[in-house]
Amino acid sequence: MKIAIIGIGLIGGSLARALRVSGHGDFLIGIDSNAAHRQEAMALDLVDEVDEDLQRIREAELVILATPVDVILGLIPQVLDLIDDHQVVMDVGSTKGRIMQVAQGHEKGHRFVGTHPMAGTEYSGPSAAQVQLFAGKCTVIVDKDKSDPDAVQMVERLFEAIGMSIVYHASQEHDVHTAYVSHISHISSFALALTVLEKEENEKRIFELAGGGFESTVRLAKSNPDTWIPIFAQNRDAVLDVLDEHINSISKFRTLLIKKDFESFRDLIIKANQIRRILN
Amino acid sequence: MKIAIIGIGLIGGSLARALRVSGHGDFLIGIDSNAAHRQEAMALDLVDEVDEDLQRIREAELVILATPVDVILGLIPQVLDLIDDHQVVMDVGSTKGRIMQVAQGHEKGHRFVGTHPMAGTEYSGPSAAQVQLFAGKCTVIVDKDKSDPDAVQMVERLFEAIGMSIVYHASQEHDVHTAYVSHISHISSFALALTVLEKEENEKRIFELAGGGFESTVRLAKSNPDTWIPIFAQNRDAVLDVLDEHINSISKFRTLLIKKDFESFRDLIIKANQIRRILN
Repeated sequence: MKIAIIGIGLIGGSLARALRVSGHGDFLIGIDSNAAHRQEAMALDLVDEVDEDLQRIREAELVILATPVDVILGLIPQVLDLIDDHQVVMDVGSTKGRIMQVAQGHEKGHRFVGTHPMAGTEYSGPSAAQVQLFAGKCTVIVDKDKSDPDAVQMVERLFEAIGMSIVYHASQEHDVHTAYVSHISHISSFALALTVLEKEENEKRIFELAGGGFESTVRLAKSNPDTWIPIFAQNRDAVLDVLDEHINSISKFRTLLIKKDFESFRDLIIKANQIRRILN
Repeated sequence: MKIAIIGIGLIGGSLARALRVSGHGDFLIGIDSNAAHRQEAMALDLVDEVDEDLQRIREAELVILATPVDVILGLIPQVLDLIDDHQVVMDVGSTKGRIMQVAQGHEKGHRFVGTHPMAGTEYSGPSAAQVQLFAGKCTVIVDKDKSDPDAVQMVERLFEAIGMSIVYHASQEHDVHTAYVSHISHISSFALALTVLEKEENEKRIFELAGGGFESTVRLAKSNPDTWIPIFAQNRDAVLDVLDEHINSISKFRTLLIKKDFESFRDLIIKANQIRRILN
């Protein structure tokens, strides 16, 4: 299948690698406005051709939008304007509500499938692409009924080809859930990194003691603002709700410390330990 | 060298494994009040002998205290009472201020060396022991001048034998630093786990979307309260200070979201990105 990937960074590049290895994408065009990224994508042999011209999507059976989510919003009408009724467009952005609204507002919106493969790293750009990024992970397809069945089927086959399982959510439900299980983790990491970096100004040796636990909780603080600012902007309301609840949770621990109520503190830890059900 | 390890869980057990492999510990006695742990430690071949009798430390050149930090406080006078002036006692607890105070208050306190190997996992018990847990990591020796030079040297050789680098801190400084780079990470993870688990009561499918980012930030929420409650209790004041600063950091992001001030939000992320200097 001939596939055009717009935005050939961490996600677009990893998809390209996985599609190639799976044999699912036999000709891949990488479209990117960033000349350095185009060059890197060719040097890394992520795709067969690169271009900056959006017109190139006319040749593709499937167009994948893998840019930051603010750029996706702007691309959707341009891309849908260019395609015919046999082509399929999908996005892989971390927010779905606004994106589906814009896509569904277009007369060719039925050719669009909104998805979110739940995988990533704190790195970005073509050089961050990993062939195994998606294998064994889960992807979301949202508002399935709004898209043509053949379009959904094409997207399902693609995800299956790269080893992903598929779940179906409503786009609004997706945005609330990802606020909890992805977006808030990033804000929590950014905040933790800031807290410790600010302390470092007076305590130069503080990072001598940073071990694996610290690394794991602040890893996401390395994430690219170009990716994350548009996500927080588009999912602001849900993220705000979670942020309030999270501050409330942390404040509970604070209050118990102030009161030296270590029995209740223990009860909260035991409750939190239930996360073992989820992680393994 | 004949070494007694009191508390043969994650840390004590991992030390045992590493000491054996390094050839540094040619006879290891595991002392533990928990019968199941003693049995497990033998079944896993972590040590040469197990016992519940503290008197067994009389045979050892070096005694390692590797229990939760509240138990360490109680053990220090008992253990120092039992040893002679050639034996050495060290602890590997995550707090150092109270422990050094108690040790230094004993007439044989000069035979005691306070340490904190900066390594661990979210698991506990003998079965969690890993031979490579400490290799390539950093350990702290605190208040070095309070201990006999030969005792410090014995402890330094042990850490070098298992592949650790050594830094020297004052115990109070250690407790402030670990509040920032270890203790707060755990509270942040516990709180994040609670936040999402509470939401799950209404949103059953929320964890379908939990990916690697979430896993990394809540991993520590699996940690054992028996280990962590005594740490928070002993380091309460420093942890409270950090908790206030952390809540303040998170609140900054909240305020910017409320104001939709995404330019300043971006500036904060770019600041947080500097954590790349530390992690790699």
